[in-house]
Amino acid sequence: MNATEGVAAAVLIIGDEILSGRTQDVNLAAIASFLATHGVDLAEARIIGDERAEIIAALRALRDRYDYVLTTGGIGPTHDDITADCVAEVSEAPLYEHPEILAILEARWPDELTPARRRMARVPNGSELIKNPLGGPPGFLIDNVFVLAGVPQVMRGMLSDVGWRLKGGAVVMSRTVRVDGVGEGLIAAPLERVAAAHPALSLGSYPYFSEAGYGSNLVLRGRDADELAFTVAELVDTLSASGITSILIDPPAVTSRATSG
Amino acid sequence: MNATEGVAAAVLIIGDEILSGRTQDVNLAAIASFLATHGVDLAEARIIGDERAEIIAALRALRDRYDYVLTTGGIGPTHDDITADCVAEVSEAPLYEHPEILAILEARWPDELTPARRRMARVPNGSELIKNPLGGPPGFLIDNVFVLAGVPQVMRGMLSDVGWRLKGGAVVMSRTVRVDGVGEGLIAAPLERVAAAHPALSLGSYPYFSEAGYGSNLVLRGRDADELAFTVAELVDTLSASGITSILIDPPAVTSRATSG
Repeated sequence: MNATEGVAAAVLIIGDEILSGRTQDVNLAAIASFLATHGVDLAEARIIGDERAEIIAALRALRDRYDYVLTTGGIGPTHDDITADCVAEVSEAPLYEHPEILAILEARWPDELTPARRRMARVPNGSELIKNPLGGPPGFLIDNVFVLAGVPQVMRGMLSDVGWRLKGGAVVMSRTVRVDGVGEGLIAAPLERVAAAHPALSLGSYPYFSEAGYGSNLVLRGRDADELAFTVAELVDTLSASGITSILIDPPAVTSRATSG
Repeated sequence: MNATEGVAAAVLIIGDEILSGRTQDVNLAAIASFLATHGVDLAEARIIGDERAEIIAALRALRDRYDYVLTTGGIGPTHDDITADCVAEVSEAPLYEHPEILAILEARWPDELTPARRRMARVPNGSELIKNPLGGPPGFLIDNVFVLAGVPQVMRGMLSDVGWRLKGGAVVMSRTVRVDGVGEGLIAAPLERVAAAHPALSLGSYPYFSEAGYGSNLVLRGRDADELAFTVAELVDTLSASGITSILIDPPAVTSRATSG
């Protein structure tokens, strides 16, 4: 049922403010879409607080398991910004003050380069810098770990310097079949039959509810365009044979208020 | 710097659609705020796909480590809804058709109780049901694992039947000190001094940027109202002594566009 045989990544979101409910994370969805366009599967995400032992344990678990890890948050100037320190420990690469970053910081705060700001110049030995197009301090890459900012605008800017470094698999394509006015319970059996016949594809059902009505978006994802097209046709036939006829192929998006189940 | 000595929980969000970037998760922030009002720390969240081995591994890791685990997603009628099966395996409690759920399903779909819909009546032996005030099938609790729907409206409805079951710690209170027109780099040193003097509190700095200007919200969190009040005063004094004077205590919220770092 799943199409994750390619290149896989994990996201590690670091910050007490997400776990306290104070801040709604928006970085995960942005990274997920970005990785999809580069043929990289986002296999897992973890959200943890600003705690050294937790960050180190999560980095170890994820970087050993996946081709790439992308972290967000914890690279600012305050005492709770400890991502670089944790990555350095896991990579066994001591932190040093990177001259390029120091120059950026000096240009940005010529008269106010406090020790706290200067901390942001520290990267593990052997890192490549990830450009920050907004002009602030950059992120960095060491081993298979991309260390990005938590501020969404900055994080998205940094992604533009991440893509070319990824060796992606075949890009995952998706097709959508929308069924209006029919609940998931009637769709489940035909959908399962088609899914079972195409183990290389991922088939999911995402119900929607709106003032205009309800239904389900059936999303087919996979790397083989021909198989995808064939399976869309097969799914439509199978649904029709079950008496379901209000079917739209690749319709304009219906705002889904549901996530799943 | 952290106030997590109390009752701790983890959230496990199950669903390919979050990891593909198709759906923006909103359940985590809702659960985080809910737990905070019940004196339960949200220590960690994981987001994983609809894969049996992944779900089981994450359930095992989280339920052993935290007082509570709350899962969302994967309890609908389709073939990718396998949360109940995985929880049953981890709890070593076989699934059975719960008569109360079956009655709800029969009332809801008197003529169309398909085998797929009937799957939603299955819960692990020994579960307590978690009411679904929207009228659909309920969630359930087994051991320390709350299994909730993924659809945000349904999930939030179910939370109303979760709170009374939690034995919470002391409720974490928070105070905010807003500093306008000053970057984090200047705030970092005084903030760190105050944080170091109050290890039982959590002090975080959350920068904001708006058309009207920029600054930082300094958020103090802890369980002791007196210490919190005293520390707010100490922080204001320390900032003032550093020449920072545009300080507001517990100001109306400024929309933060930043998460951290």
